[in-house]
Amino acid sequence: RINADRLQETIHHTCQWGAAHRYGSGPAETGMSRLSLSDDDAQARRWFAEETQKLGCNLVVDQLGNMFASKRGSAPNPTPMIAMGSHLDTQPRGGRYDGILGVVAAVEVLRTLAENGYKTHNDVGAVNWTNEEGARFPKSMMASGVWAGKIPLEQAYSLPDIFDPSVTVKSELQRLGYIGDVACSSVGYPLGAHFELHIEQGPILEETGRKIGVVQGGQAYRWFTVTVNGRDAHTGTTPLKSRSDPLLAASKMIASSNSIAKNLGALASTGVFKIPPSSSTNTIASEVTFTLDIRHPDDAVVDEVQRLCFESFQAIAKEDGRGVQVNWTLDTDSPATKFDSDCIKMVEKAATDLVGPDGWLHITSGAGHDSVNTSSQCPTTMIFVPCKDGVSHHPEEYCSPEDCALGAQALLESVVNYDKL
Amino acid sequence: RINADRLQETIHHTCQWGAAHRYGSGPAETGMSRLSLSDDDAQARRWFAEETQKLGCNLVVDQLGNMFASKRGSAPNPTPMIAMGSHLDTQPRGGRYDGILGVVAAVEVLRTLAENGYKTHNDVGAVNWTNEEGARFPKSMMASGVWAGKIPLEQAYSLPDIFDPSVTVKSELQRLGYIGDVACSSVGYPLGAHFELHIEQGPILEETGRKIGVVQGGQAYRWFTVTVNGRDAHTGTTPLKSRSDPLLAASKMIASSNSIAKNLGALASTGVFKIPPSSSTNTIASEVTFTLDIRHPDDAVVDEVQRLCFESFQAIAKEDGRGVQVNWTLDTDSPATKFDSDCIKMVEKAATDLVGPDGWLHITSGAGHDSVNTSSQCPTTMIFVPCKDGVSHHPEEYCSPEDCALGAQALLESVVNYDKL
Ligand SMILES: NC(=O)NCCC(=O)O
Ligand SMILES: NC(=O)NCCC(=O)O
Repeated sequence: RINADRLQETIHHTCQWGAAHRYGSGPAETGMSRLSLSDDDAQARRWFAEETQKLGCNLVVDQLGNMFASKRGSAPNPTPMIAMGSHLDTQPRGGRYDGILGVVAAVEVLRTLAENGYKTHNDVGAVNWTNEEGARFPKSMMASGVWAGKIPLEQAYSLPDIFDPSVTVKSELQRLGYIGDVACSSVGYPLGAHFELHIEQGPILEETGRKIGVVQGGQAYRWFTVTVNGRDAHTGTTPLKSRSDPLLAASKMIASSNSIAKNLGALASTGVFKIPPSSSTNTIASEVTFTLDIRHPDDAVVDEVQRLCFESFQAIAKEDGRGVQVNWTLDTDSPATKFDSDCIKMVEKAATDLVGPDGWLHITSGAGHDSVNTSSQCPTTMIFVPCKDGVSHHPEEYCSPEDCALGAQALLESVVNYDKL
Repeated sequence: RINADRLQETIHHTCQWGAAHRYGSGPAETGMSRLSLSDDDAQARRWFAEETQKLGCNLVVDQLGNMFASKRGSAPNPTPMIAMGSHLDTQPRGGRYDGILGVVAAVEVLRTLAENGYKTHNDVGAVNWTNEEGARFPKSMMASGVWAGKIPLEQAYSLPDIFDPSVTVKSELQRLGYIGDVACSSVGYPLGAHFELHIEQGPILEETGRKIGVVQGGQAYRWFTVTVNGRDAHTGTTPLKSRSDPLLAASKMIASSNSIAKNLGALASTGVFKIPPSSSTNTIASEVTFTLDIRHPDDAVVDEVQRLCFESFQAIAKEDGRGVQVNWTLDTDSPATKFDSDCIKMVEKAATDLVGPDGWLHITSGAGHDSVNTSSQCPTTMIFVPCKDGVSHHPEEYCSPEDCALGAQALLESVVNYDKL
């Protein structure tokens, strides 16, 4: 049995590093801002290293700072571990559960197994994946993507901080001493399976009154950075027809991407919109950069939204005054994913044992997760627990202590079931 | 006769403080970034104080850092001076002529009068007005507005830096030692007249092949800061209908303001668009702030564009998902202005003497100028000279040495004509 109180204490203990955006007076009533490879992230990493080593785990850090803590099983030789993984980095205005719950629960499962003297056959362990959020370095699930062979290591190393291009993933790994020797790949550090406990980040479990989501896979998504170039000009003396106004064009593009996605039942969202720091009320900006995030469960629909958006952007670029230039780069590409049926069966069994057959639900993830990457290299699935009002990427993100503990218990039992299998 | 070479040397000498945005290899081929009350602005101010004092002027600094340098005339008692004024501050990506030409030419006129032993009847002098651009502290023609009684002193003092709200006009004036004792008002420091030489900042003189614009007045304009509030949410798990997305709403508002202005033959422009620094690709922003600058020669049309824009903004705020909140503040309000007919006649006479009756043009200013404010307190007009391609608020803003000198000569003769009158 998971110790629900200790699980809560541990979650909030680790949230001392990066606590931000207070919304209430209670000690845990803040959100988080623990950007990947920040000083706060390094503190949380040190905690992970110490706790797992106390439990007798062997800790390996790979070239991208991924942290693998494995505990030997009873099999005569070491086996690729059955991993429980997630991430300790957060959004800049994130909450206390997204990613954090998965890693802390993994440690709690290891503690519970140790306390009960339960010996698995295979090695089991916990993983902390680097830069899952893609918030600071805009490629989500970055290090699990490199591990899975989807992203070249050098590309990840050279990713710049989205607001400070003088800093890269590599320079921050170096600064914090988190570049390990082991190759970041499923050959360098193979896994036997990957189970990830996570808050749902959406409203479905809560709305249907279920406690556990047995995750079938993840929807497809693609991220772009769109750059629109124009020309500085005086807002009072430059006729509309003589302008080359990137801020106006970008605004129209964002409105257009939203209506294209709406028509196709997809999602298109812009979270970041940047103008040069030398901007003023009475000057037309010279350049605008914005992000575009397109999602749908079906890869073909993501393709279609993308095609229609960039067709529309090119038309908008010619629409006003002297026109603007528009260019884009693909930052993240995560196709639709189906998880492993054996892993799913183990979670179904654990869920039925814990909450009965009507207490859980099959669900598809709207968000990307490291499990989407690991699933191409090892049997993988995820366990979702409800979060209040489906709110995530927000300081007030919340999962009740009971639901956290239930999720951790399901994680423990799924891993034990899988180990027996 | 104005010394054209010395005028050029002086312009580029003063542009050492704040030179930025190099676009060619020549020594003067940079733009400027000399924001109001920055360290560079303080250097330019010190130059102005020294040069005018060398010429025997009496220098007065008022409560808002406006600098008045006056030279006694031959009248038995001091008279309110015939002022030649403009500003030494620039846009963050501005050029070497906007404002600078007017102040440097004023000093050059004083030098020319002194060298020739020409004694005016009235006191004459030069003025450097604080924060004309409204780029750093978003109220344009700020200090001339206070001098003219249109803006309360305390409101100007408390204006925050648009990107760093911890700094205000007052704190920067204090830091630089530029809060004087004299009241900032036309009682504290009365002027007999105000003549301002400025680049046109638009294309009309160049397109019509004229050398001098005799300015009849300025068009009306109003600046707003619009704030749109929504709610952080995950871009992958939050259905469009559950969102409260201020970035999407702001984009639609900007597109809408443009089309409203276009329909009415007016201008509407957004130069600044801000999201919280804690933004990321996969999070809906919580708040967006943007500026709106509406202009037309007719006050009633500005009213109408404003009314239609805010009607449209309120409708857009309800359009998508759960809606957003929209609020706005008025930052600058500059009604349409007519300049003084006597002053205009003096400039017409000087222009006809210099370039003949077909070499100049009546013109209305698209931009705001300190003269728009002084004109409510003393006889005022402006002299425009052409600038290349009508480009301004851009590093490559350019006025030829001949046109600079011609403008300064017209300024000298207008002031001498007015003094005789
Ligand atoms: N779980 C999560 O928020 N991951 C970040 C990647 C995404 O935006 O889906
Ligand atoms: N001349 C000038 O650019 N003044 C700034 C105020 C305005 O935007 O018109």
